[in-house]
Amino acid sequence: MTPEKPAPISRRERPAKPALTRQGIIDAALAILRDEGLGKVTMRRIAAALDTGPASLYVYVRNTGDLHAQILDSLLGPVKAPAPEAGPWRDRLKALLVSYGEVLFRHPEIARMAMSTQPSGPNYLALAEAILGLLDEGGVSGREAAWAMDLLLLYPTAVAVEHSSPAVAVEHSSPAVAVEHSSPKSATQESDEFSALAAKIATADPARYPHIARLGDTLLSGDGPSRTDWALDVILDGVLAAASRASAEQRGW
Amino acid sequence: MTPEKPAPISRRERPAKPALTRQGIIDAALAILRDEGLGKVTMRRIAAALDTGPASLYVYVRNTGDLHAQILDSLLGPVKAPAPEAGPWRDRLKALLVSYGEVLFRHPEIARMAMSTQPSGPNYLALAEAILGLLDEGGVSGREAAWAMDLLLLYPTAVAVEHSSPAVAVEHSSPAVAVEHSSPKSATQESDEFSALAAKIATADPARYPHIARLGDTLLSGDGPSRTDWALDVILDGVLAAASRASAEQRGW
Repeated sequence: MTPEKPAPISRRERPAKPALTRQGIIDAALAILRDEGLGKVTMRRIAAALDTGPASLYVYVRNTGDLHAQILDSLLGPVKAPAPEAGPWRDRLKALLVSYGEVLFRHPEIARMAMSTQPSGPNYLALAEAILGLLDEGGVSGREAAWAMDLLLLYPTAVAVEHSSPAVAVEHSSPAVAVEHSSPKSATQESDEFSALAAKIATADPARYPHIARLGDTLLSGDGPSRTDWALDVILDGVLAAASRASAEQRGW
Repeated sequence: MTPEKPAPISRRERPAKPALTRQGIIDAALAILRDEGLGKVTMRRIAAALDTGPASLYVYVRNTGDLHAQILDSLLGPVKAPAPEAGPWRDRLKALLVSYGEVLFRHPEIARMAMSTQPSGPNYLALAEAILGLLDEGGVSGREAAWAMDLLLLYPTAVAVEHSSPAVAVEHSSPAVAVEHSSPKSATQESDEFSALAAKIATADPARYPHIARLGDTLLSGDGPSRTDWALDVILDGVLAAASRASAEQRGW
């Protein structure tokens, strides 16, 4: 007895694919980012996950760069400044920047991307607007506010990249191409680098490197949050000084 | 007539390979970096260029990360502070940081690497020593000098990465791997990004983004050197404020 051949199912009877949406594409991209890294977040891979062809995606997303920018914008959704009653403008601004930095810290590959592309999505604009509003509360406006915003955003982005693992070139046998994959540094990596630097500092020749030798362990002092808090205060103090110089010049002093 | 078979040449009669040296390996790596990008600067590729096996290189270089760090250090050789008679400490410090930034600007892939590895070669230590010396001249010492040095080095590194082209994932047919290759942004790329952002700013809803709408083109004002000069002054003013606070606290004020 030969097994009965199953009756062919008409295409029309298969469950319909969910309609493609911009958000559906971003969600699929975020899932691939989480599970496989940014290197795998390509139009082809997302098309496969959504059971469609790459060409269909281009209606919603211009190219891989645009896709990555949209992922960043989507991750910035929860980054909000504390309410005005939470404290002085300066503390609220620092809290906002720390919360932005935390998102990038959790997604080092996105941080690397944020360093070299100019984001312009709605959540990024809302973040820029919030920073400008808080600077305005602190008396910083005009060109000083515009340039300060860039510097204030650059700092937490750079720190997040600094604490990500370097993109390591992995050699493949055929074809001879290298894959870069970036991830947060492991505790071992951080501590190895720290030890290597600590050893250099401890053994620095005081004749050749007098300041390094004198400062010694002070060069390595402070944890991440203390250094970030210190650096944001340094930048804000400098910005306030620049703003008061600019306003004095405007008044012709 | 069959052509005569050439007489076998004894291994001993072939020209001797040049002896491997650390500097020879770095020079080969720099040539590959210049011609083919950092992604191709692998132990295997350098071994091929030097007509040896990768295993021989490991005597001189621990791994690809170590190799990249040594490339960075080698590029920092010409980065020196101007002589004391060139001007006040602050101008000499800014000139030193600008010259460091220029090296990274010319080598965006090295800048990306410098962001996420802790360099500790002799030229990097000399740069750190020079910064600490200039800060000391300006009255900044102790913890403030240590933390300021990190912040001052981070800024030009981050700016160089910002102006490099994002590492773009290129899809390959088989196997499905992505290659990241970073290079300086083309004028077209920079101007496309600039136009996209300018358009967002020009059309920003003043009800939703009042500060962005009010600042308008001011957000995009200033060229790279003016912004860098402004940012370094902001950081130095903030550092001087932190140093005078710290010294007041030490004196129990």
